[in-house]
Amino acid sequence: MRTLHHWTLDPLCRQVRLALGEKKLDFKLADETPWNPRPEFLAVDPGGLGPVLTRDEATPVIGSRAILEYLEEVHPDPALYPADLEARAESRRLIEWFDRKFATECGAVILQEKIVKRAAGLGSPDMEALRGARERVRWHMDYMAWLLEQRDWLSGPKMSLADLCVAAHLSVTDFLGEAPWDDFEGVKDWYVKLKSRPCFRPLLTDRVPGLTAPPHYADLDF
Amino acid sequence: MRTLHHWTLDPLCRQVRLALGEKKLDFKLADETPWNPRPEFLAVDPGGLGPVLTRDEATPVIGSRAILEYLEEVHPDPALYPADLEARAESRRLIEWFDRKFATECGAVILQEKIVKRAAGLGSPDMEALRGARERVRWHMDYMAWLLEQRDWLSGPKMSLADLCVAAHLSVTDFLGEAPWDDFEGVKDWYVKLKSRPCFRPLLTDRVPGLTAPPHYADLDF
Repeated sequence: MRTLHHWTLDPLCRQVRLALGEKKLDFKLADETPWNPRPEFLAVDPGGLGPVLTRDEATPVIGSRAILEYLEEVHPDPALYPADLEARAESRRLIEWFDRKFATECGAVILQEKIVKRAAGLGSPDMEALRGARERVRWHMDYMAWLLEQRDWLSGPKMSLADLCVAAHLSVTDFLGEAPWDDFEGVKDWYVKLKSRPCFRPLLTDRVPGLTAPPHYADLDF
Repeated sequence: MRTLHHWTLDPLCRQVRLALGEKKLDFKLADETPWNPRPEFLAVDPGGLGPVLTRDEATPVIGSRAILEYLEEVHPDPALYPADLEARAESRRLIEWFDRKFATECGAVILQEKIVKRAAGLGSPDMEALRGARERVRWHMDYMAWLLEQRDWLSGPKMSLADLCVAAHLSVTDFLGEAPWDDFEGVKDWYVKLKSRPCFRPLLTDRVPGLTAPPHYADLDF
């Protein structure tokens, strides 16, 4: 049996949950807390970044980048990257954009200020940092809107891993009430399509102690 | 003809230069400045992260993650990932470790404080941040030393893209005089082996205006 060691609000963990779901691969979840990792978890993933995919006696696969490529290599059907090599590159470009740029400028800042600081006892949120992150969320959504004016999905005519990975980032932003959907109708329509896929359902029922997601978070028709 | 749009001291750009070199693919370099990107560069790579690989009329390939996987798919000989799927995952785990964790905690901090701040007119270096980054460099090198006690190369018995990518990160740290090689003999031996490969030579002749690399930087037998 596969187990995904994850933190509910880590977008990179959510990417793997979505990919496993699209590929209809069964797995169970084990909760980890990145700011206070268990020694047993660090013994497997000394960087403590997660997620980690274990399968009985097999070697664990560690980190979102490794797991996503591994799943694609081991379980190629359905393929989550396009067949065309340049389209694959476009899909990976968008994943890197969100993993590096969106996360650093927006996602990780919002998580740190609104969630991790409280959970780890690191003081109150830095409102200036939050304001900056909120502005940058709009900039990224604006870029997505521009892409979606030209394409049905983010990386081209078909849904790809880029859509799942970017949606994973935005699903956390949305959970924390920081996704201004109504100002980006095209992006909202795209997100509604993804949210309606079976792979997305488990994310919509996620609960985090002490935190209430906005009412529209789990609404498929918001 | 291939052109790699890069910044000399960006480790992710160096990763691509090393991979192109190992695969004996000709390319020329075009300099970009990430803190002050040209509008023409942003038109191709709106995130401005780079590197970008262009080839005459073909679609540009954007971002280190996309380029490295693309090169492996289009020019599989010599292969830079191991053939075994779990060994590939281990190689990608280490790349993600350095791209995400080493860069955030050490590499990007040192670059920002020692280089970008001066180049972009952002004031003087934060010595406290530099001190923290230096300590963390030792922590990462300690982990590498531990791996290299068990393996000939970082991800296993054969050199892989993980070695090139991690060496790209450390080559920048070294250029800035911040790699404490003498305290990590095993890591130093590993780095000497990589430095001696033909793909590494162009990196050793890199010059950055206003900056002098330590004398051992280009020395193959330091």
